[in-house]
Amino acid sequence: MRARLDALSASLAELGCEALLVLASSAQDTDLASFLPAPAHLGDCFLVLPRGGEPRLGFMTPMEREEAAATGLALLTPDNLDISRLSSELSEAAPFLARVVGKALDLCGLKPGRVALAGHGPAGRIQGTCALLAAEGWIWVPGNSLVFASRKRKEAPELAGIREAAAGTCEAMRAVAGLLFAASHDGAGSPLRLAGEPLTVARVRAEVARIFFARGLEQPRGNILAPAEEGAVPHNSGTPDRVLRAGESFVVDIFPRGRLFADCTRTFCVGEPPEALARGHDLVRSAVEEVHRRSVPGARGWDLQEMVCARFGEAGFPTPISHPGTTRGYVHNLGHGVGFDLHEFPTFKKASGGEGVLREGDVFTIEPGLYEPEAGWAVRIEDLVHLGPDGLESLTPLPYELDPAGWR
Amino acid sequence: MRARLDALSASLAELGCEALLVLASSAQDTDLASFLPAPAHLGDCFLVLPRGGEPRLGFMTPMEREEAAATGLALLTPDNLDISRLSSELSEAAPFLARVVGKALDLCGLKPGRVALAGHGPAGRIQGTCALLAAEGWIWVPGNSLVFASRKRKEAPELAGIREAAAGTCEAMRAVAGLLFAASHDGAGSPLRLAGEPLTVARVRAEVARIFFARGLEQPRGNILAPAEEGAVPHNSGTPDRVLRAGESFVVDIFPRGRLFADCTRTFCVGEPPEALARGHDLVRSAVEEVHRRSVPGARGWDLQEMVCARFGEAGFPTPISHPGTTRGYVHNLGHGVGFDLHEFPTFKKASGGEGVLREGDVFTIEPGLYEPEAGWAVRIEDLVHLGPDGLESLTPLPYELDPAGWR
Repeated sequence: MRARLDALSASLAELGCEALLVLASSAQDTDLASFLPAPAHLGDCFLVLPRGGEPRLGFMTPMEREEAAATGLALLTPDNLDISRLSSELSEAAPFLARVVGKALDLCGLKPGRVALAGHGPAGRIQGTCALLAAEGWIWVPGNSLVFASRKRKEAPELAGIREAAAGTCEAMRAVAGLLFAASHDGAGSPLRLAGEPLTVARVRAEVARIFFARGLEQPRGNILAPAEEGAVPHNSGTPDRVLRAGESFVVDIFPRGRLFADCTRTFCVGEPPEALARGHDLVRSAVEEVHRRSVPGARGWDLQEMVCARFGEAGFPTPISHPGTTRGYVHNLGHGVGFDLHEFPTFKKASGGEGVLREGDVFTIEPGLYEPEAGWAVRIEDLVHLGPDGLESLTPLPYELDPAGWR
Repeated sequence: MRARLDALSASLAELGCEALLVLASSAQDTDLASFLPAPAHLGDCFLVLPRGGEPRLGFMTPMEREEAAATGLALLTPDNLDISRLSSELSEAAPFLARVVGKALDLCGLKPGRVALAGHGPAGRIQGTCALLAAEGWIWVPGNSLVFASRKRKEAPELAGIREAAAGTCEAMRAVAGLLFAASHDGAGSPLRLAGEPLTVARVRAEVARIFFARGLEQPRGNILAPAEEGAVPHNSGTPDRVLRAGESFVVDIFPRGRLFADCTRTFCVGEPPEALARGHDLVRSAVEEVHRRSVPGARGWDLQEMVCARFGEAGFPTPISHPGTTRGYVHNLGHGVGFDLHEFPTFKKASGGEGVLREGDVFTIEPGLYEPEAGWAVRIEDLVHLGPDGLESLTPLPYELDPAGWR
């Protein structure tokens, strides 16, 4: 956390800011959560980080004092902030919050000047609060991207949170493989059956949900369980009553959140895969393995994306580089960082700064894919990896096999 | 929707505003969703409502054009807004959004002037966007509370959404009663057992989760499944491995969200209830029934709260009126509106305006309770009701009985 605070202070200095203010509707706010060593149940709250100093957590109701104290952060308590009096005198949200924040900045030893602003909340309240404080001399600088960038390198408790979510993801993926392995069918194109019933997307989704629930994981962004032609459109999450069939591709992309997110994709095919699907799967798998090998500190995400595009291009597939906007072949980016948000840094897009360079401490996905909407098949393989002191570690060490029999 | 738009225009006139701007990170934003006839899958988006005019929905990527068109609203498309050019020219979020919003306001025929601001988003981006537009003459007025107030009276699709969530809530509550009825025990104070296992809070929670999942309902705010001494502290959500026991109270408060929320509480006791618990339950039940009878258009929430406090006070319990801040007896408010947010208007707090008056079209909870932390029991009964053209309708028409046998 020391290194992250130092980096934030350096960024504040670059922006000419004396402090960072994070406004939040709860302690789950992604900007605020990154300062907490563990989850906390707080409603409206905020954090002040004076440049070069220690963060202080402000909260609004005495009922939350134990939760706030458990964070281990220095606190700005409702008593310190005079909440009881201010809330009785000021019924509107913005004037109230402006007085509270003004008091907090003062208690942190700050004088009106430039402050970077991060966190999330109601637009009118934020604008109103900032305008009232601006009238007292405070100058606001957008700061969400500052905090976002600071979250690229994961702290130990964050990595632990991602590992927990990844462990549940692996259990769910193995359970999907188990359902598919247990299903029967009458040959290519015939419906899969399980316990006498046609095996639907909804049945698989229920199994995933059961495992996530038991582990306390949520799916705030849903999931993708997309057979054949549905999987060939990366935005399609899979129609619940669609019955799975032998010989078709089945893209399973799950991204649950515990305290932080995990993200993993495998593609299955029960029975003999069509030749094009089998070849596509070999190509994607070898691309994943090559990116694993090349994911070293200092590697650029965009260089890896170019490398994958070149491989797929040589194999005859259009790519975003050869055919911008293509909806067949390889149609997306190679990966993304994962943390409190599902999409964080590092980026695999063209990037001029450090956000596009892999560094020790990063957690990110590697997820090449091939899509053939007309032929009705798709393959995506996505690993979640951690670039640690001993090199690249997969947090989703699962088989790659299309055939669920290969998972046993 | 016409009446709501007219009311919003009247409020804009009172504030001297020419328009309402709603900024959102997704179409699920509670301020933005209230303008949509059905859910839509959109990322960053916004809505402009010129005073006296029709709302227009702005979105950022052509991939979302079908989703946006399905809302039936007039659109500000990425083409209209010149998104492609602006995003290539402006890499930072606030300058980009300022140009997009400025263009949108212009396309809506607005000239720089006063605009009410609602919606939710990243604090720095919102402040930065508004500051850049302020430099062009736009004057911002906090508008979240305006939209919040406009959502008090439910539109037909909103009521339908609440009914859906309420139906799932009732199914889950009946399932809880079923588990409790099926449990065995060896008399007062002994653990409940189900299928040979001790019956835990976690087991009940899994049953609730299973039903909500099957109906596509989420629990973003969790739930409360709180036995005995845990239920006596309204903030306690119930310890998962706590084993339920015969003769103790068990508060089950569930509040899932589909498109909108529902909210319902029942209190159970397996086996013979202690006399104090049985008496408390009778008092709470008759208070609920009395509030049902008095919930007519024009009734004030605070008057109903006073009436309930008087009844519980006469029965010897402290109340928030007789003993402000009490943690035993009746310790909270009588209810709250329910909609896109779990807590909306009407309010049952002291209120000077229309937000504290029940009107046709309101959906709200009635939830008196009694709490005895030292004795270790609690009772809360919460109905979700709709004040319709034919009077008060319960959306949670479930038994009130403590004994799950009374639920069969």
